[in-house]
Amino acid sequence: MQRVVIVGGGFAGLSAARGLARERNVEITLIDERNYHLFQPLLYQVAMAVLSPAEIAAPIRSLVSGNPRTSVLRQRVVGVDLKERRVHSEKDSHEYDYLILACGVRHTYFGNDQWEPHAPGLKTVEQALEIRRRVLDAFEEAETEHDAARQRALLTFVVVGGGPTGVELAGALGEISRHTLARDFRRIDPMQARVILIEAAPRILASFSEQSSSHAMRDLESLGVQVWTQSHVRRIDLNGVEVGNERIEAKTVLWAAGVRGPDLNQTLGIELDHQGRAVVNPDLSLPDHPEVFVAGDQSHVTGPDGNPLPGIAPVAMQQGHYLAKRVRKAIRGAPCPNFAYRDKGRMATIGRSRAVAEIASVRFAGRPAWWVWLVVHIYYLIGFKNRLVVILQWAGAFVRFSRGARLIVDKDWQFYPMENVDAPDQNARDASDEQSKPSAPREGGNPSRNP
Amino acid sequence: MQRVVIVGGGFAGLSAARGLARERNVEITLIDERNYHLFQPLLYQVAMAVLSPAEIAAPIRSLVSGNPRTSVLRQRVVGVDLKERRVHSEKDSHEYDYLILACGVRHTYFGNDQWEPHAPGLKTVEQALEIRRRVLDAFEEAETEHDAARQRALLTFVVVGGGPTGVELAGALGEISRHTLARDFRRIDPMQARVILIEAAPRILASFSEQSSSHAMRDLESLGVQVWTQSHVRRIDLNGVEVGNERIEAKTVLWAAGVRGPDLNQTLGIELDHQGRAVVNPDLSLPDHPEVFVAGDQSHVTGPDGNPLPGIAPVAMQQGHYLAKRVRKAIRGAPCPNFAYRDKGRMATIGRSRAVAEIASVRFAGRPAWWVWLVVHIYYLIGFKNRLVVILQWAGAFVRFSRGARLIVDKDWQFYPMENVDAPDQNARDASDEQSKPSAPREGGNPSRNP
Repeated sequence: MQRVVIVGGGFAGLSAARGLARERNVEITLIDERNYHLFQPLLYQVAMAVLSPAEIAAPIRSLVSGNPRTSVLRQRVVGVDLKERRVHSEKDSHEYDYLILACGVRHTYFGNDQWEPHAPGLKTVEQALEIRRRVLDAFEEAETEHDAARQRALLTFVVVGGGPTGVELAGALGEISRHTLARDFRRIDPMQARVILIEAAPRILASFSEQSSSHAMRDLESLGVQVWTQSHVRRIDLNGVEVGNERIEAKTVLWAAGVRGPDLNQTLGIELDHQGRAVVNPDLSLPDHPEVFVAGDQSHVTGPDGNPLPGIAPVAMQQGHYLAKRVRKAIRGAPCPNFAYRDKGRMATIGRSRAVAEIASVRFAGRPAWWVWLVVHIYYLIGFKNRLVVILQWAGAFVRFSRGARLIVDKDWQFYPMENVDAPDQNARDASDEQSKPSAPREGGNPSRNP
Repeated sequence: MQRVVIVGGGFAGLSAARGLARERNVEITLIDERNYHLFQPLLYQVAMAVLSPAEIAAPIRSLVSGNPRTSVLRQRVVGVDLKERRVHSEKDSHEYDYLILACGVRHTYFGNDQWEPHAPGLKTVEQALEIRRRVLDAFEEAETEHDAARQRALLTFVVVGGGPTGVELAGALGEISRHTLARDFRRIDPMQARVILIEAAPRILASFSEQSSSHAMRDLESLGVQVWTQSHVRRIDLNGVEVGNERIEAKTVLWAAGVRGPDLNQTLGIELDHQGRAVVNPDLSLPDHPEVFVAGDQSHVTGPDGNPLPGIAPVAMQQGHYLAKRVRKAIRGAPCPNFAYRDKGRMATIGRSRAVAEIASVRFAGRPAWWVWLVVHIYYLIGFKNRLVVILQWAGAFVRFSRGARLIVDKDWQFYPMENVDAPDQNARDASDEQSKPSAPREGGNPSRNP
């Protein structure tokens, strides 16, 4: 029995685990600190109040429960002993014959980590919910704000980073203010909200063609988004952003620029690129460790054009599939060709029925691209139920510009998290008072009619 | 122009606001500290990982946006000056000609508030998500726990309180362990999980008939739930519950017993009952203040049988409708009959296709009652989209025992909440380190195929 340990239940890790499921003499241990697989490409829709987290995520263990030889552990991996061939988690350690690392990346603030509290990034469900809370909060606060300057700052939204995520966030913010909230407020006019997208490069969507990026730019501007290219963020604080010599007073700043490899990479004593990603062999194995592979964002793989492969879902999935094959062959002692990435192109959506797509040499824009985007994403979204639910939410968003998830859920709960149960020091954190929630009682069923 | 201020966007407040919307010369200000109306009767399904919060909640302002004379403010009301006829919120104050208070209730631990962190109640979305997190966490922790005693404690769930909420929670917990998770774990057997429902009274569902309550009891036991009646909780701590002279080692304890009026009631200098609810006249007005009304759970209204009306959604809705009429007539100086509650009966559901219902003198149980329950709740659930989405989720839960929302979302985010932006003291709270989330990258669209 060969023990394969996979760290990370993202696209790469999950694809590898599924690809190895059929292998009789392989015992898989899939370790992730979350209990769910997240469909990251739609995470911005959670942040923009269209979808609920559960609609783009599914429990990892139910995704692999079909295979009795696969066990899923929700643990945080803290280190790997490459010599002893052991993975160390916070409470456990696991021996392996083959190891697949696919931990993804986190945001980097280019040495300005003090910006993070003021400009959350969009990698986790928690971050998405935090962004949603801040955006909706800002409008609510503005409605009850009497000071004009403060009100204007509350209605100013800055997105840093003109990649696909930044473009999608900015476009959605434009839509929310122009359409979704247009009729809901009495004292403010959401249409007066300013949305500013800041990009350091000469153009947004740098990974796309000139045409696509200028098309996206026009689409954004038609949604009222100001696009500032060749602009460098000098400072982000509680109340705004400094860009070049200008200062923008903004209560809501979102970060969509720059990622860096997981801290785990630092502990491995291996070669890392300047972004902290693991430099691997063409077969995704670590130099001197043919039994250890790094996949997805966590790894630096050189593409045919000499540049590293982009950190996108397709790369991660293809690498996961490849590693399943790679390990199967290795077990049989059979040779395996190197990993080759099949580029399926790229897409970015800019709000309702606007998008840019480049598939092979074909370029779409506008509504056709949006439909392609829609179909592709629904198709790949995991879980039949999720797909249906998401289609419904999108139908609502498309037809009525409605947003199904406009809830502001407080981040401060008064309970101690389970994890802290044995950590009294953390329990010392002062719990905020419960507030008597205005709401209907619930001590019996049978609610009566609503007018 | 008559100024009507409504505090609370629950069933009572929302019904009143809608009922007054047609009134030309009325200006309505609806104040709630949340931005959403919550369909409380289904909140336990959020806690039990079937639904997402957004599926049973909708933004208050979009629910009343049709009426230009209604403005919604998301503020926390801290006091009322009955003489000056002013409502004071944290940042504002609002004059009124008529005031409707409908703030709901909160849980009470009968003088043992130190139990709260160990046994969360189920009144708010935050609490529901916290309960969901704890329940799913317990199974995950148990899977990686090596100590048998601790593992058993992790797989023991105690629900305190045998009312409808407690019964529904216990039934759902039984189902989760017996069906939903049955095949997902390798090291533990979820079916070994113990679910214990504790009730001080001689029988559960005391507000129902003997037959219904014994039927519910049998249903619960068929789901593996142990029902302990006439049992008194002496102590709840981090690791378990003391009931009478017995101690149950349990990592998850849920509180569904006892509510008390909002703190606001204490500040009004009015008569309160022993539960802290405002004792009002038969027309829901405050003694000596015919222009101030208290509705929903917050008020104590004596029913035809001499007992106070139960704290359930139908009462709150009917009172809201009544108050709309009452205020309209008052403005015209016309007399208005007292509030009369039309009892539509009661329902409680015990997991999939099990329920008890008492409508008029008719008693249902089992599958028929469950279908009645299902239809009634879908029918009253606000918002077309929500209804469809919920039906889908339930279809999945019914057919496959699946649970659409099995996500463990961390409660500790590293960002400071918007509200705290101007409260540096709160910002002092140490932010937990971000952890590099294992997940697929998201810097481009077009995810490729999933195996």
